[in-house]
Amino acid sequence: MKRVALIMGSDSDAPVVRKAAAVLDDLAIPYTVHIMSAHRTPVRTAAFAADAANNGYGVLVAFAGKAAHLAGVIASQTALPVIGVPIKGSDLGGLDALLSTVQMPSGIPVATVAIDGGANAAWLAARMLAANDETLYERLACQMRKMAEAVEQKDRDFSLDTSK
Amino acid sequence: MKRVALIMGSDSDAPVVRKAAAVLDDLAIPYTVHIMSAHRTPVRTAAFAADAANNGYGVLVAFAGKAAHLAGVIASQTALPVIGVPIKGSDLGGLDALLSTVQMPSGIPVATVAIDGGANAAWLAARMLAANDETLYERLACQMRKMAEAVEQKDRDFSLDTSK
Amino acid sequence: MKRVALIMGSDSDAPVVRKAAAVLDDLAIPYTVHIMSAHRTPVRTAAFAADAANNGYGVLVAFAGKAAHLAGVIASQTALPVIGVPIKGSDLGGLDALLSTVQMPSGIPVATVAIDGGANAAWLAARMLAANDETLYERLACQMRKMAEAVEQKDRDFSLDTSK
Amino acid sequence: MKRVALIMGSDSDAPVVRKAAAVLDDLAIPYTVHIMSAHRTPVRTAAFAADAANNGYGVLVAFAGKAAHLAGVIASQTALPVIGVPIKGSDLGGLDALLSTVQMPSGIPVATVAIDGGANAAWLAARMLAANDETLYERLACQMRKMAEAVEQKDRDFSLDTSK
Amino acid sequence: MKRVALIMGSDSDAPVVRKAAAVLDDLAIPYTVHIMSAHRTPVRTAAFAADAANNGYGVLVAFAGKAAHLAGVIASQTALPVIGVPIKGSDLGGLDALLSTVQMPSGIPVATVAIDGGANAAWLAARMLAANDETLYERLACQMRKMAEAVEQKDRDFSLDTSK
Amino acid sequence: MKRVALIMGSDSDAPVVRKAAAVLDDLAIPYTVHIMSAHRTPVRTAAFAADAANNGYGVLVAFAGKAAHLAGVIASQTALPVIGVPIKGSDLGGLDALLSTVQMPSGIPVATVAIDGGANAAWLAARMLAANDETLYERLACQMRKMAEAVEQKDRDFSLDTSK
Amino acid sequence: MKRVALIMGSDSDAPVVRKAAAVLDDLAIPYTVHIMSAHRTPVRTAAFAADAANNGYGVLVAFAGKAAHLAGVIASQTALPVIGVPIKGSDLGGLDALLSTVQMPSGIPVATVAIDGGANAAWLAARMLAANDETLYERLACQMRKMAEAVEQKDRDFSLDTSK
Amino acid sequence: MKRVALIMGSDSDAPVVRKAAAVLDDLAIPYTVHIMSAHRTPVRTAAFAADAANNGYGVLVAFAGKAAHLAGVIASQTALPVIGVPIKGSDLGGLDALLSTVQMPSGIPVATVAIDGGANAAWLAARMLAANDETLYERLACQMRKMAEAVEQKDRDFSLDTSK
Repeated sequence: MKRVALIMGSDSDAPVVRKAAAVLDDLAIPYTVHIMSAHRTPVRTAAFAADAANNGYGVLVAFAGKAAHLAGVIASQTALPVIGVPIKGSDLGGLDALLSTVQMPSGIPVATVAIDGGANAAWLAARMLAANDETLYERLACQMRKMAEAVEQKDRDFSLDTSK
Repeated sequence: MKRVALIMGSDSDAPVVRKAAAVLDDLAIPYTVHIMSAHRTPVRTAAFAADAANNGYGVLVAFAGKAAHLAGVIASQTALPVIGVPIKGSDLGGLDALLSTVQMPSGIPVATVAIDGGANAAWLAARMLAANDETLYERLACQMRKMAEAVEQKDRDFSLDTSK
Repeated sequence: MKRVALIMGSDSDAPVVRKAAAVLDDLAIPYTVHIMSAHRTPVRTAAFAADAANNGYGVLVAFAGKAAHLAGVIASQTALPVIGVPIKGSDLGGLDALLSTVQMPSGIPVATVAIDGGANAAWLAARMLAANDETLYERLACQMRKMAEAVEQKDRDFSLDTSK
Repeated sequence: MKRVALIMGSDSDAPVVRKAAAVLDDLAIPYTVHIMSAHRTPVRTAAFAADAANNGYGVLVAFAGKAAHLAGVIASQTALPVIGVPIKGSDLGGLDALLSTVQMPSGIPVATVAIDGGANAAWLAARMLAANDETLYERLACQMRKMAEAVEQKDRDFSLDTSK
Repeated sequence: MKRVALIMGSDSDAPVVRKAAAVLDDLAIPYTVHIMSAHRTPVRTAAFAADAANNGYGVLVAFAGKAAHLAGVIASQTALPVIGVPIKGSDLGGLDALLSTVQMPSGIPVATVAIDGGANAAWLAARMLAANDETLYERLACQMRKMAEAVEQKDRDFSLDTSK
Repeated sequence: MKRVALIMGSDSDAPVVRKAAAVLDDLAIPYTVHIMSAHRTPVRTAAFAADAANNGYGVLVAFAGKAAHLAGVIASQTALPVIGVPIKGSDLGGLDALLSTVQMPSGIPVATVAIDGGANAAWLAARMLAANDETLYERLACQMRKMAEAVEQKDRDFSLDTSK
Repeated sequence: MKRVALIMGSDSDAPVVRKAAAVLDDLAIPYTVHIMSAHRTPVRTAAFAADAANNGYGVLVAFAGKAAHLAGVIASQTALPVIGVPIKGSDLGGLDALLSTVQMPSGIPVATVAIDGGANAAWLAARMLAANDETLYERLACQMRKMAEAVEQKDRDFSLDTSK
Repeated sequence: MKRVALIMGSDSDAPVVRKAAAVLDDLAIPYTVHIMSAHRTPVRTAAFAADAANNGYGVLVAFAGKAAHLAGVIASQTALPVIGVPIKGSDLGGLDALLSTVQMPSGIPVATVAIDGGANAAWLAARMLAANDETLYERLACQMRKMAEAVEQKDRDFSLDTSK
C-alpha cells in the first residue's frame, strides 16, 4: 500500500498530528512523520514534495498554523493529493490558518479539513487510498459502522422520555 | 478509469460546476453531472451516495452555498473521498458555505477547496485518481508544467526594468 | 400535549441540552432526549425525523457544533418546526455552527437560536406549542412576569444613587 | 386559522417581505403586513406585540437590518413565537443584523432564519401553524414533495455522463 | 450638575459597570445604578428612559451583551444622549454586542464605546457634561494631564538604551 | 449655541458628511466643515483639536475609513466629546474603520456611530448639545415625533390584511 | 541606488502593481516588474528570491490574493526585507490574503501593507531605502509635505462655516 | 549602525516587546525601549517620531492593541520605516489591532507583522538595516541557517516511519 506522509510545520503541532497517526494506526495504513517548515527549511520541504511520488507516497498531509503555507508549498511541487490541516493559534481561532490553507489558486489544490482536524485528515487520506483498494475500503466502511454503533450505544445511555 | 460525480445543490451553482467540468474534459477524466439537494431531495441524495462506490465512482464532488450541507450529507453515506466546493452567496462572501463544508466532525471528512473553486475541485479529484494511475499522473504533471510555462510567458510579456 | 424532542449530535453537547430540559421541566412540557448524528448515523436520524409527526412530536430541537448539519438534515425529513442550537467549539466561538444552522436554503427553514442557547430553544419550543394551547400560553406569560420580577428585585438590590 | 403578522422595520425591507407573502399566499395562510420601527415607533410596536395574541395572531415575523432590534422588542411583549429575518445592509453583508437578531438572552427567544430569508420565514411560520393543523401539515408536506420534484426535473435537464 | 444613569441589562455586567462608576466617582459626577432588561422588563425600561430628562439625567449609559438591545431601546424613548457599552460574551468576543449596539438606524443614535469599555463610557459621559460646564471641563483636562504623567513615569521606569 | 465641527479625513468621505450637514441644517445647529488628515496633516489636526474648546465648538465629528485614526487623534487633544463615523471602504465593508474608531483605550473615548452613519453622527451631536438646551431638546423631540409619524404613514400605505 | 522588485502572482494583480510603480517613478527609484507564482512556478520564484541580494535588489514587493503565499515564499529564500500586498478577491474582501500574508511565523517576517495597498508598498520600500540615503529621505519628506499641502488645499476648497 | 526604537503603547505590551528585544540582542543591533501613548501622550509621541531620524534611528517599531493608532501616528511624523505590531486583546483576538495597524491610507505606510509578532518585528527591522550592511546581512543569513538546522534536528527527533 502507498504510504502517507504526516508533515508538521512546527513541533507545537504534534498533538494534532498524533490524532492523525492514531487513525492511520487503527486502519493499518503505513505512514511517516516529519517536521519541515515552508519558511525555515524551504529547500528541504520542496525536495521532499518533489520526490514523494517516487518514494512510495500516495497522500501528503501538512499541518500548519497562522499564515499556513506548508500545504500549498508542498502541493506546488507534486501532483499527489495534498491534505491541509489548519492549526489553531492563540489569537484568531485558526481562521488565519484555514483561509491560508483553503483559498488556493486554480491548478494547485489543497484538500482542506477542519481546524485542528487531525483525525479527519487521516480519514480523508484513508478514503483516497481506499478508492483503489477494496480491502481498505471495506475496513473503512466497517469503521464507519462502528462509529454509528458507538453513537447508538450513547443514545441508549442518554435517552430519556418524560412523556411516559 | 473510475468516474467523478459533480453534484450541485442548485442550478444556480452551474457556472462553478462548469469550471470543474472543463478541467476534467482537458484531463480526459470521465464524469457525470447531477442536481441533488441535501434538503429538498434528501432520500435520493443519500441513495446516490450510498451506491456511488458500486456504480464506478472514484470521487464525489459537491457544490453548495449558504449552510452548505451537501458534501457532508454525501460523505456520511459513502467511504469514497468527497470534495466540497463552497459557493459564494450574495451576503457573506461564501464564509458561511466554507465553514459549513470544512468544519466536519471527526470520522466524516470533506476535502474542501476554495470558495467558488470549481477548477480546483477537479484538479484535486484528478490528483486523487492519479495517485494510482501513472498515465494520469504524468498527464497532470504535464499540465502543471504548462501552467508554469504560461506564467513564464506572461512574465516575459509584463517584465519591466527601469534600472537599465 | 405534543412532545418535544431534544436531539444532540454528540454527548459533548449534553450541558447545553440540560439547560433546555430544565426549562421544559419547569413548564411541564413532555420531551424525549436523543443522541443522533447527521454524519455518523444518517439513516437513523432521517428515520426519526420522518416519523416524528406520527409519533406525537410537535417540535424537534437539534443541538450541534462545527459544521452543524443536524438541524438541517432533520428539517429535510419532516414538516414539523425544527429548532437549531449552534454549539460553541474551541476555535471559532460557534460562528461556524451558527452559520451552518441558520443559512438554510429556501423551503427548509431551521428556527435558529443563540450560540449555546439551550434554554432559549426550550422557550421557543414552548411558544410554538403555546400558540394553540391557552393554558400553556398563560403558564409562559406567568414565567415571563416572574423573570421581570427577578430583574426588578435585582434592580432594587443593586440600585445606587450618588446624587442624594 | 390563526394569522401571521409580517412586520418590517423600514419600507426598504419590502422586497424580502414580499417573498414571505408569496409563500403564505401559496399556502392560503392569512396574514397582515405592517411597517413598525423598534426605534422610531417603539410605543406602537410594543402595543401591537402585546395585543397580538388577543387579535388572532399565531406567529409574528419581524424583518430588520443593521442593529436589528425589531424581533427582540416584539418578543419581549408577547409569548407568541416570533421569527426574525435579518436584512442585508450595504456594508457587513447582514452579519450585524444576524447577530442582533439571533443572540437573544435567555427567556426571550427569536426564531432566526437566514439573512434576507423572507421565504423561509414564511415556511417556518407555516410549520409552526401546521403542528396543530393536519390539513395545513399535509399541504406543507405536499409542497415539500413538489420542491423535490422540481429538483428532480432539473436534475434530468442538467444530467450529463461523459463516461458513456 | 445633571446626573448620569448607569443601566446594566444583567447583574453579570456589574464588573464593567463598576469601572464606569469609579471614573464618575473620581470626577465627582453624580450617578445612579440600575438593572433593567430591554427584553425582560421592557415596560419599566421604556418608562425610565421616557422620564429621564425630567428626572435630572443628562446622559444615559447602557451596558449589554449578546444581541445588545438595551441602548437602542432606551435611545428610542428619549432625546438625551445614550452611550452603549457592548459586553463581551463567552463566544464571539463581544462582536455581536458591538454590532447590535453601534449599527443603529438613522435618527436614533447610540454613542458606542469599546467592548467592555466601562471606563470610557464614563469618560465620554463626562466629556458630554463638560461641554457646558467649565469647572468639569478643567477637571477632565487635569485628569488627562495626570494620565499623560503616569505614562511618562512608566516610560522613565521602562526606558532602556542598549546603544550607549 | 456651541458649534459642531465636521472633519473628514479625505474628500471621498464627503457624501457621508453631507448627510450629517443636512441634519444639522434641519435642526438649525451651526457647524463648520473641514478636511484634515490624521496622517498627512497631523500637526494641523492636533492644533485644531487642541483649540476647539476655545473656538466655540461643543462637539467634534470625525469621518474616516480604513485604519480610521482621525477621531482618536482628535480625542487625544481635547476634552470635548468626539464622535467617530467609520467610513466603508471597498474591501472589508467598514469593519476595519469601525474597529479602529470604537476600540479606544481607557481615558480617550470616541462616541462611535454606525458605518457610514453620517446622519446619526449629527443626531448624536444634537442630543449632546440638547442636554443643556431645552429649546433644542424640544426641537429634537419634535423631530422624533415626525419620524414616528412618517413611519406610521408608511404603515398605512403598506398595510395589508389577507384575513379579511 | 538598490533596486526594488515588484512581483505579482498573477497578471490580474497588475492594476495594484501599477499604483506601486507610479510612486516609484515619482521618487526616481529603479525597479523591475515580474510575474511569478509561488504555486505554479515555485522553482523560479525561489531562485529569484535567493539571488535577489546579489542582483542589486534592496527590497522585494510581492502582490498576491486569496491564500497569498508569494511574499512568504520569497521571504523564506532571502534576508532582504520583503513587503506583502494582499490583493482583494471577489469573495472575502481580501481578508484571506491579508491573514495569509501577515500572520508569518517567527523568523521569516513579511512587512504587510493594506489590502490592495500598492501605493503604500512603494512608499514603504522608499522609506526602507531612504533610511540609508539622505537624498532620498529628503525627497520623501518633500513628498510628504506636498501631500499635506494637497490636503490643506482641499480643506480650503471644502471649508464651510454656517455659524457666521 | 543605526538604532531601532521599540515603542509600546502600554506597559501591558511589555512581554511582546521583550521578544523583539531578545532578537535584537542576539543580532547585536542597538535599540532603545519606550512607553508612549498615541492617545495619552500625543505631543511627546509626535515629537519623538519627528526627531527620530536626527537621533540616529533607522527603524521605529510600535506595539499597540485595540484601536492601535501608535504606529500610524508615528509614521505620520517621520519618513523612517515604521513597523507595527498588533497586540492581542481579551476580546477580538487582535483583529481590531491588526486592521487598525495595517489598513493605512496611501502615503503613510506601516509595515505590519503578525498579531503579537514581537520577534518578527525585530527580524524585519534587522532585514531593513541589513539591506545596506553586508556584515549584518551575513549575520542574518547565518541565523536563518541556524533556524533551518534547528528544524532539521527536530525532524530527526520526531521522524517516524511505520512502513518499515
